[in-house]
Amino acid sequence: MSCPGFRFAGVAAGIKKKGGLDVAIIAADTTAAAAAVFTANRVKAAPVLLSAAALRAARGRMRGVVVNSGNANACTGRQGAADARAMAAAAARAIGARPQQLLVASTGVIGQPLPMDRVGAGIAAAGAALDARGWDDFARAILTTDKQPKTARRELRLGRHVVTLLGCTKGAGMIAPNMATTLTFIVTDAAVAPAALARATRAAVAPSFNAIAVDGDTSTNDMLAVLASGATGPALVGTALRRFTAALTELCHDLATQLMRDGEGVHHVVTIDVRGAASERAAQAVARRIATSPLVKTAIAGGDPNWGRVLCAAGNAGVPLATDRLGLRVGDVEVVRTGALAPGYDEVRAAAVMREPAYTITIDLGAGRAAARFLACDLSHEYVSINADYRS
Amino acid sequence: MSCPGFRFAGVAAGIKKKGGLDVAIIAADTTAAAAAVFTANRVKAAPVLLSAAALRAARGRMRGVVVNSGNANACTGRQGAADARAMAAAAARAIGARPQQLLVASTGVIGQPLPMDRVGAGIAAAGAALDARGWDDFARAILTTDKQPKTARRELRLGRHVVTLLGCTKGAGMIAPNMATTLTFIVTDAAVAPAALARATRAAVAPSFNAIAVDGDTSTNDMLAVLASGATGPALVGTALRRFTAALTELCHDLATQLMRDGEGVHHVVTIDVRGAASERAAQAVARRIATSPLVKTAIAGGDPNWGRVLCAAGNAGVPLATDRLGLRVGDVEVVRTGALAPGYDEVRAAAVMREPAYTITIDLGAGRAAARFLACDLSHEYVSINADYRS
Repeated sequence: MSCPGFRFAGVAAGIKKKGGLDVAIIAADTTAAAAAVFTANRVKAAPVLLSAAALRAARGRMRGVVVNSGNANACTGRQGAADARAMAAAAARAIGARPQQLLVASTGVIGQPLPMDRVGAGIAAAGAALDARGWDDFARAILTTDKQPKTARRELRLGRHVVTLLGCTKGAGMIAPNMATTLTFIVTDAAVAPAALARATRAAVAPSFNAIAVDGDTSTNDMLAVLASGATGPALVGTALRRFTAALTELCHDLATQLMRDGEGVHHVVTIDVRGAASERAAQAVARRIATSPLVKTAIAGGDPNWGRVLCAAGNAGVPLATDRLGLRVGDVEVVRTGALAPGYDEVRAAAVMREPAYTITIDLGAGRAAARFLACDLSHEYVSINADYRS
Repeated sequence: MSCPGFRFAGVAAGIKKKGGLDVAIIAADTTAAAAAVFTANRVKAAPVLLSAAALRAARGRMRGVVVNSGNANACTGRQGAADARAMAAAAARAIGARPQQLLVASTGVIGQPLPMDRVGAGIAAAGAALDARGWDDFARAILTTDKQPKTARRELRLGRHVVTLLGCTKGAGMIAPNMATTLTFIVTDAAVAPAALARATRAAVAPSFNAIAVDGDTSTNDMLAVLASGATGPALVGTALRRFTAALTELCHDLATQLMRDGEGVHHVVTIDVRGAASERAAQAVARRIATSPLVKTAIAGGDPNWGRVLCAAGNAGVPLATDRLGLRVGDVEVVRTGALAPGYDEVRAAAVMREPAYTITIDLGAGRAAARFLACDLSHEYVSINADYRS
């Protein structure tokens, strides 16, 4: 897979204890439009602070991205800030840019100083390995506990041009809304002005990465960045820009869904579909609360249509609810009508739906016309094992 | 254990699938002052709605409490409301009171109609069994998945009188703040006016039941009720009332701690001690977020001093934080100083602390002088097993 105007690389620099690719670069041939969304966590890792400042200072015009996995460079004090700057400088040297034109991202264990000798050597090696067909190496080098690389690609015909969108994501825990669920990088050869790209990125993230929850924790390092080289076609405006935004949203939804499926100990990906809310905000609050409730998530793990837990979680969302108006479906099985067990409810059929790897729980609040969707998953024994025992 | 002015009973009525005591009554000999705190969940069970209305209408003067376990009478529609009223009426007949003078509480599976023939027979049998020494039966009859009954007792000398406070609690999951973590009943022979009792109850609940979290979900049925018979001594005011409030708070803390220890799959009860916050509200938000983070709770389960997760959870509390001012201790081991690993940090010692059944994690925000405490516990394999497989 390739995308005009970009080269990619991923190399093994010895940062991950278990080995494997762990330093990665995206290099734009010339200055690219760039937009990013960063973690909402108040404890932000050094690379997040550096990248946000660089993007602002450069008004959304960057030359590339440098990433390491295996070490988050978070809670590392002044040394961490200096190390993030050193990564930008090394990558800038490797691709012939200025340090301020680089986004820096890190992922892995928190609170350990970066092994800068290895990181520096890795960045030099990645610079030498840059290739228009290096995307797969890049996508592998950003992984940590992920079971597999997660990439997606879209082509979009705009008049007589065809532009490509290429994305990859990593993350298997700490997947939660309010941005930043993970590291995600997207490149495109479309020509989009920085301000338009920033708007398109925010629009694409809201119903995708900001509407999934594995464990409700947002990491110190999360970042999603989009680079547009402009190598193909004229600058997008109007309908073409709207179609680009739609394709970007679809790509993000694809990546976010892959992220859930690959989540720690995940066997079921469940769409929480909230309808009949008084406002979109209320619908989102209810959907998020259901998706993050440990009691709902263990019920999903057990395949148990314990619907009281879903209503209970809805009641904890801080949104006014009329209990006697609530409706609930599991797949196409009506479970609750007007707040009580639906006539003819078939528990055996509901349990059969819950054995599927993917299904929908629909809750109707009976209070209005607003709706929201959230992706939830099970809380399983594997989740506990992975997270009780994990250290990068 | 007994308390002047009250009789108690617990009987087996066949409501719980697995058998055992499941209908319980507290009867005051004459009208008692009563105060209660109910669940903040917007989906409230029928007995919660009935009890809250009855308490308001009677201006805090009640004759007793009737409880069933094994069925929550929640999400049961109009029939559920009628059944709760029928429970109050049956208990009123059994003790010679008016139905409006009874608090009603239920706990167990959600969404199933109460088997009212059994409930009615159980209430009659409990009425016949009422005894000043029936406390232990009462405390057993309110249990569901609890491993054991949880009771506490305090004596308080006030001038030439000694008054007793007697409390019991149940709950092993759905333990979360914002009241109501469980069913809790407390009786005392002190003489306290209803308004004063309501204030004392709110003061006692805040640092105890509202500062513990097992899974962050608040149930549809949670209720804590206090009845004061006034059988002993004059009405409490001034210093005597303050001392009574302190004793009530201590009793609630004792019961809340027992609740945590008996929580589903709990091996470690960890005090999250937040200091140096800009406001008490900020301190509470940070403490609650750390205590409910699945990543922190699995780290507690694994005995892994993965302190980055604690800082990460703190950063997700929605409170401004200066990362470079954060301090963290596990027990007496300094882990983080000014946002980075403390000089001389000893991971082996920190891991040893985390093998203890009870310890403290202290986080200093370096932003002010406000503090808050929260009790947290581990997220273990047993929690998943119990909640993936549980149905009353």
